[in-house]
Amino acid sequence: MFFERLAERIDTADSVLSVGLDPDPDRLPDHLREHDLPRWAFNRRIIDATHEHAACYKPNAAFYEDADGWRALEETIAYAHGKNIPVLLDAKRADIGNTARQYATLLDTADAITVNPYLGRDALEPFLSRDEKGIFVLCRTSNPGGVDLQNAALASGETVYERVADLAREWNEYGNIGLVVGATAPEELEEVRERAPDLPFLVPGVGAQGGDAEAAIEHGLASGVGLVNSSRGIIFAGEGESFAGAAGEAAKRLKRRLNEYR
Amino acid sequence: MFFERLAERIDTADSVLSVGLDPDPDRLPDHLREHDLPRWAFNRRIIDATHEHAACYKPNAAFYEDADGWRALEETIAYAHGKNIPVLLDAKRADIGNTARQYATLLDTADAITVNPYLGRDALEPFLSRDEKGIFVLCRTSNPGGVDLQNAALASGETVYERVADLAREWNEYGNIGLVVGATAPEELEEVRERAPDLPFLVPGVGAQGGDAEAAIEHGLASGVGLVNSSRGIIFAGEGESFAGAAGEAAKRLKRRLNEYR
Repeated sequence: MFFERLAERIDTADSVLSVGLDPDPDRLPDHLREHDLPRWAFNRRIIDATHEHAACYKPNAAFYEDADGWRALEETIAYAHGKNIPVLLDAKRADIGNTARQYATLLDTADAITVNPYLGRDALEPFLSRDEKGIFVLCRTSNPGGVDLQNAALASGETVYERVADLAREWNEYGNIGLVVGATAPEELEEVRERAPDLPFLVPGVGAQGGDAEAAIEHGLASGVGLVNSSRGIIFAGEGESFAGAAGEAAKRLKRRLNEYR
Repeated sequence: MFFERLAERIDTADSVLSVGLDPDPDRLPDHLREHDLPRWAFNRRIIDATHEHAACYKPNAAFYEDADGWRALEETIAYAHGKNIPVLLDAKRADIGNTARQYATLLDTADAITVNPYLGRDALEPFLSRDEKGIFVLCRTSNPGGVDLQNAALASGETVYERVADLAREWNEYGNIGLVVGATAPEELEEVRERAPDLPFLVPGVGAQGGDAEAAIEHGLASGVGLVNSSRGIIFAGEGESFAGAAGEAAKRLKRRLNEYR
């Protein structure tokens, strides 16, 4: 069970911090560019510098979508596992039938994944049926455009994102579902928590996006289990040859800040 | 402009058929398995056998998400381009900020892409701003679970998928947006066409999923431009060493069947 393993890791690290591994090619330090797999070289150094503070690592699939990228991602996942830290692949996938089954093979290596609810339950079934893995369903995302569809009011009274929270509870046959709810809209974070009291949240938007850390902790955890993510705020905290040390410091600081509210 | 180039291709091939290139590893013919890149070997033979009948090729990204897969995809796209046939990458992506920008680099090689509307406009902006490319927004998908969220009734009277059609029209600043509307729900296909009279549709679900070919043509095209896709019904029409010939015959048959209604 992913959420049990995550709970153990949260205890061990005394942290609910998810460190986003988004090695933007335009921002990698120059001295790593000579490596065979610069993204893997970058991630390894980030993991070495931050692993004491990380409840999980969250690589976003967007940064690995090429031949070398998938190799870098595989190395990264194996390295995090070597340190007993779970890996949540931020893929936001959903597709139908045999295609969804194919996407679900991403869980052969990752421990958890983010998925998009727009295509409905059968599109997520190949993920959900992996009962040992964690499946985080996008609910209320942290970007400004999140309101365009997610905040539309339904005839039954709730918003689309509230309906998604209800559906996620319905779909949670194996107890392996969590929700993605951004820290940039703290009132909505609270509403979703009331609606889905038992689901762990992945709360993005606390770092570079300026979201509310206190609300993220107050509403993001279910029985102490949940994740608050920062990506750019940690991995690009510094530049040049000292980037990893700066990332380690940023991770430690954010862990402590989050722990003030736990 | 993608839709102008697509219109030319539809004229040249006298076809609105999109051939889905979904090389399911479990279904590849045995004699191709010894190749360095079996998926590319498979796709090349499918393209050789079907190119006269194809308005475009539509690889689904799910089948290429590993190191060799991305190499196979790149070879496939280049080969289709060598035959002057556009490639629509069925990726159903959406993400926020710098991550969406990274996903949009998938359009550096592909001519068009499918995207998921759940995260709203800013998540799609890096795709939409590629005004020479085609961006197909998921509206009403062909799977049974499509109803779970897409058919929910909004307080304003329309369904979620109808709202998506309205948003897509709003977002269509560059005239490069199409909609994905499944052939498995012909009445809804008609409703979306009434709502968005000018947008070309990509209509999946006509082959293995049993959708309505006549409705796909009647409502899927805008000024004659649109695509009706079959994947498994064509590429796995035959087995063993004669698979490519069978695919060619299946593509020709479906093209003719669709042309009866054009």
